[in-house]
Amino acid sequence: MYTPDERRPEGRANNEMRPVKLTRDVMKNAHGSCLSEFGDTRVMCTATIEESLPAWRRASRKGWVTAEYAMLPASTSSRTKREYKGRKGRSMEIERLIGRSLRAVCDLDHLGEFTITVDCDVIQADGGTRTASITGAWVALHDALMSFVEQGKIKRLPLMGQVAAISAGIVGGVPLLDLDYPEDSHADVDLNLVGTADGGIVEIQGTGERSTLSRAQLNDLLDMAEPAIARLCALQDEVTGFSA
Amino acid sequence: MYTPDERRPEGRANNEMRPVKLTRDVMKNAHGSCLSEFGDTRVMCTATIEESLPAWRRASRKGWVTAEYAMLPASTSSRTKREYKGRKGRSMEIERLIGRSLRAVCDLDHLGEFTITVDCDVIQADGGTRTASITGAWVALHDALMSFVEQGKIKRLPLMGQVAAISAGIVGGVPLLDLDYPEDSHADVDLNLVGTADGGIVEIQGTGERSTLSRAQLNDLLDMAEPAIARLCALQDEVTGFSA
Amino acid sequence: MYTPDERRPEGRANNEMRPVKLTRDVMKNAHGSCLSEFGDTRVMCTATIEESLPAWRRASRKGWVTAEYAMLPASTSSRTKREYKGRKGRSMEIERLIGRSLRAVCDLDHLGEFTITVDCDVIQADGGTRTASITGAWVALHDALMSFVEQGKIKRLPLMGQVAAISAGIVGGVPLLDLDYPEDSHADVDLNLVGTADGGIVEIQGTGERSTLSRAQLNDLLDMAEPAIARLCALQDEVTGFSA
Amino acid sequence: MYTPDERRPEGRANNEMRPVKLTRDVMKNAHGSCLSEFGDTRVMCTATIEESLPAWRRASRKGWVTAEYAMLPASTSSRTKREYKGRKGRSMEIERLIGRSLRAVCDLDHLGEFTITVDCDVIQADGGTRTASITGAWVALHDALMSFVEQGKIKRLPLMGQVAAISAGIVGGVPLLDLDYPEDSHADVDLNLVGTADGGIVEIQGTGERSTLSRAQLNDLLDMAEPAIARLCALQDEVTGFSA
Amino acid sequence: MYTPDERRPEGRANNEMRPVKLTRDVMKNAHGSCLSEFGDTRVMCTATIEESLPAWRRASRKGWVTAEYAMLPASTSSRTKREYKGRKGRSMEIERLIGRSLRAVCDLDHLGEFTITVDCDVIQADGGTRTASITGAWVALHDALMSFVEQGKIKRLPLMGQVAAISAGIVGGVPLLDLDYPEDSHADVDLNLVGTADGGIVEIQGTGERSTLSRAQLNDLLDMAEPAIARLCALQDEVTGFSA
Amino acid sequence: MYTPDERRPEGRANNEMRPVKLTRDVMKNAHGSCLSEFGDTRVMCTATIEESLPAWRRASRKGWVTAEYAMLPASTSSRTKREYKGRKGRSMEIERLIGRSLRAVCDLDHLGEFTITVDCDVIQADGGTRTASITGAWVALHDALMSFVEQGKIKRLPLMGQVAAISAGIVGGVPLLDLDYPEDSHADVDLNLVGTADGGIVEIQGTGERSTLSRAQLNDLLDMAEPAIARLCALQDEVTGFSA
Repeated sequence: MYTPDERRPEGRANNEMRPVKLTRDVMKNAHGSCLSEFGDTRVMCTATIEESLPAWRRASRKGWVTAEYAMLPASTSSRTKREYKGRKGRSMEIERLIGRSLRAVCDLDHLGEFTITVDCDVIQADGGTRTASITGAWVALHDALMSFVEQGKIKRLPLMGQVAAISAGIVGGVPLLDLDYPEDSHADVDLNLVGTADGGIVEIQGTGERSTLSRAQLNDLLDMAEPAIARLCALQDEVTGFSA
Repeated sequence: MYTPDERRPEGRANNEMRPVKLTRDVMKNAHGSCLSEFGDTRVMCTATIEESLPAWRRASRKGWVTAEYAMLPASTSSRTKREYKGRKGRSMEIERLIGRSLRAVCDLDHLGEFTITVDCDVIQADGGTRTASITGAWVALHDALMSFVEQGKIKRLPLMGQVAAISAGIVGGVPLLDLDYPEDSHADVDLNLVGTADGGIVEIQGTGERSTLSRAQLNDLLDMAEPAIARLCALQDEVTGFSA
Repeated sequence: MYTPDERRPEGRANNEMRPVKLTRDVMKNAHGSCLSEFGDTRVMCTATIEESLPAWRRASRKGWVTAEYAMLPASTSSRTKREYKGRKGRSMEIERLIGRSLRAVCDLDHLGEFTITVDCDVIQADGGTRTASITGAWVALHDALMSFVEQGKIKRLPLMGQVAAISAGIVGGVPLLDLDYPEDSHADVDLNLVGTADGGIVEIQGTGERSTLSRAQLNDLLDMAEPAIARLCALQDEVTGFSA
Repeated sequence: MYTPDERRPEGRANNEMRPVKLTRDVMKNAHGSCLSEFGDTRVMCTATIEESLPAWRRASRKGWVTAEYAMLPASTSSRTKREYKGRKGRSMEIERLIGRSLRAVCDLDHLGEFTITVDCDVIQADGGTRTASITGAWVALHDALMSFVEQGKIKRLPLMGQVAAISAGIVGGVPLLDLDYPEDSHADVDLNLVGTADGGIVEIQGTGERSTLSRAQLNDLLDMAEPAIARLCALQDEVTGFSA
Repeated sequence: MYTPDERRPEGRANNEMRPVKLTRDVMKNAHGSCLSEFGDTRVMCTATIEESLPAWRRASRKGWVTAEYAMLPASTSSRTKREYKGRKGRSMEIERLIGRSLRAVCDLDHLGEFTITVDCDVIQADGGTRTASITGAWVALHDALMSFVEQGKIKRLPLMGQVAAISAGIVGGVPLLDLDYPEDSHADVDLNLVGTADGGIVEIQGTGERSTLSRAQLNDLLDMAEPAIARLCALQDEVTGFSA
Repeated sequence: MYTPDERRPEGRANNEMRPVKLTRDVMKNAHGSCLSEFGDTRVMCTATIEESLPAWRRASRKGWVTAEYAMLPASTSSRTKREYKGRKGRSMEIERLIGRSLRAVCDLDHLGEFTITVDCDVIQADGGTRTASITGAWVALHDALMSFVEQGKIKRLPLMGQVAAISAGIVGGVPLLDLDYPEDSHADVDLNLVGTADGGIVEIQGTGERSTLSRAQLNDLLDMAEPAIARLCALQDEVTGFSA
């Protein structure tokens, strides 16, 4: 059985996130890009705007935001196969989650007839790749939209707010924030929370991996995760100046 | 905007489930089967035991339970295409959820070298197909395992408990239990809860479809869903005599 | 070697069909539906009308009728895999046969620019799934067309007649009508006949599985199958009132 | 409407086959090969023996014969696409038919643990590609088996007889033998007969393309087709010396 | 180690090609066809003209020439699988090479809104299938274009020159021209040269299979290959009368 | 027409490479990794060792080295689609080239029963992605092998030499070394050279994109490319200490 030492690796407190870095403008070609790092987890988030709509959306004349998620084969401790012979359920689940999260804060009615694809490519995986993806994806999306605002192709920034995400879990009976890979692989219960800067929940996904979860435990985990969302949104704000 | 009338269709109260029927033994060939009906939603759940393990699991010599989910093309109001040219993310997400839910109450260490596939085929869809699937899948799984216990192939029933599922959502500002399709398509917030007979949460998935969800709203929805899980488990118990 | 007892299971005579039931209107969403039962074989037949034509047919401005055939995994005695990684030749052969059979009695020139897809989903398989499919598919097609006639979208019923199907075979030297699965798996020779109410042959497919077939045997089988087609058409007529 | 002139192209009588040529040993690498020509229809038939069994057949330790059928893209009057993105039902139907036909005369119990694949590649298509395939495939199979007999790998030729095939149809009301492509595209009724040298029927497939078929017409077509099978078997015999 | 005898098979000199035959008009349906034989290597080259453009090229209103390459399963000494479950890199590489080679001499600006597909189907493989393909493909393309010129659909032949190809390699230290399969499988170094009638290089591809290649060796191989290209172009000219 | 200015971008001479950086140890999980940068082109090269052999190679008991190549969707100026619905010929061609290049200098007989996969993931594309891939891949392969030597799993480094690659081309009539993307898209002729530290040619691929190439031009390009290979090998040596 896994017993976390009295202190977590690198002396983190139980309700402490790993060091988070959001580095903008790391790609020459994308309309917006952000390297999102949560500890050793590194996700390259890029947003590309295409000046057309997918066929099924054309009649509505409203914009669309979608996401793709993939891992470099060598991002994981044992090499991950590329999904050439059929997509994996896990990847499709994560990219659907990223897409829904971004659309929750994007004003599609005022986006114009554009399709934005946000690619989240995991360069290195050490737990929390979906939360690092969502948090960085918002920055890439913001920057892509802003570049179109600056070119006059969109009138005003069609973003109604910020969205960020964090994980929490119960490991050896102890609630912990922002699990790294070794913690995550021993978690009894695993929660991902996607939230907005004003405290709303966009998405909550909790799974009992090794045991079930009580209402009390659910509340403990949410109590840890909510302030983390706020801190992540503050960091997004700092790098983009969104609320200014 | 969608405004539910003062009363829900067929006079249901806001915290009232649709009529639920679990009919066992509806298939001649499967080891266990259950037609699960939540109102007009009808899912054929069947459990088949194969006396071998998937390749990746062979070394462990431990049993495995997995699930597949599909919809008949004519189950939905506009015809749904068969997934011959690539699986849909939604289907894979749901079948992964069903599988995790069943494994949460199945004692894989004492299952023996068997693989159980639980097929959930939606005959008719009117909202809540994943919750009807999970609730019926447990009955089919129970019956398949019991048939192997009776044949002496498994020593004792390797089930640690029951698992059932229900949806809830906020529609036009009002929290409602067990959404049917018209309600679901207008929901602001959508929650699926998978739980055990003793009140544990196996899986919680909440999504803000049209707005975000507050902690208070989350609690309202859970307060509705938890007693429903208990009622569904009681019904499972009634048809299978599991707790007897 | 397989020797059928003096009497067939359930006391059927050699030239007797199993009990056949055609139950209409079993699906809420399809334009027409029919649960077709030949003994323990149960096929859900549904017809859905789409108000457009496939690309290759658009220039002709004439309607189209097509069919899909699939088996629930648990419909068979050992579980059948879903055809996600490539269609099976057998399924494609059967759905092409169903489509041709329906088109033989449908007046495509007066159907209008509609595409009708008839789905035949085998719920339980006990021999004769293709003949149960065709026989029930005609009912579902009739009802779907009639609903469009009633809505004024089609002027008059574009059906030139009825089509039904039955199997026959030689088992242990003895000609038998409407083989069930155990009989079918021991047949020396297997024949499927698709015919119209006025005695025309739409499709004849005979295969020597374990020995060849003489002209005399072929005639014996056809002599059994032809009156059965007539009885099936009478039953279709009874449930739909087509000839009235 | 299509009215065949008083005489068929090149002065053929109604019950006359096109000139048929079976040329053996046309390929350097295959164990057996035969270029089968029925008029302008040319099919390259090759048989390759692999000294192992398919996985599903291994336990039986009995040999297996299977077939593949494909058309060169330029074999048809408008270019046919290669089946890289999914097999066509028609091709799978034909290759299943060829395989069944060959297995009907092959003594799989005495074949040894070998898998024989007979490839039928249509070089040029002018009607009757499936009948030319079966007729030539038997020769290629015979020669491949004989080469193994000569090498002492198989004790005696595991062939119980010969199999050949011919088409017939009703065009403009007139029964015709061995339809070429223009005749085939205007046929009301189309029949393929696969038979043995001793007059047995291996497979009969008749389809009403534009009208239904009466018992009398079926008999007319069979009366034309049966002697043609005998003539084709005689030709096979001539080139292989099988009956000698 | 492979030591070529003092003389190559059939007494070929080291810088001598195998007998080459280009036979035109071997297919009834294609717009142009050429059976290209380099010794025992036989490739059926056919060119089909479609009176439309691929979607991505439509805006340009300029013609397009593309190629497909495939091997009959029995063309090789051990049977080659058809590429139904995914294309092989080797085939795609070769068909891209053929396409580029043909486009290098085709005046796409004056071709008109036509798409020409040149199919190279290897009937028998004995080394040099890609060079036989390119050499024969040009003849098929020429004839297809000429047929459209004759019909007045294209004003003048949109061909700027001829293109042909030959292989060379170093086997056991000795430079050899036009390797057959046994030579090719023992080559240290393998070179394919695609060139025009006026001595230009269209494509050069050299690979050290078992050792590296020096500049001197590269020059030796090119010195052998260049006159061979000239001879092949002379042969193309002879059969088509292109330069006349 | 494209006329390169008197000086190339950033003042490069015609025979001058872009600044090249090879940064080792950039990935936590791979056995060897190297970020390879040629100007703005950035490729993440990682080598992973699996302690088993591919099925087809098992009997030989000799090691294997293979490569995979992919581009991040946002690496290119207009977004590149992921290859989920079928591989692109170009990618397969490049990964086959990388694999052959590495195997040319790797002593597979003394590698042991290991499979090494070298992944080349293009983070940013600005021309020369295949040459940057090969040059960086060698470093990643070296480091992976060295880690196994250090762990005693391999006795001595099974590398017979170094391999690197560079492009050259003729743009507006002028021979240029190491084309960036704008130069590459206007090149008349394009050459890729893969070579060893001791001056051997591993692979040469030259294509006339807009015109043909003369022998003299080929020699000019090789004269530029050969010293560049030497410089790249010196750089590899510097970062790995291979020759020390």
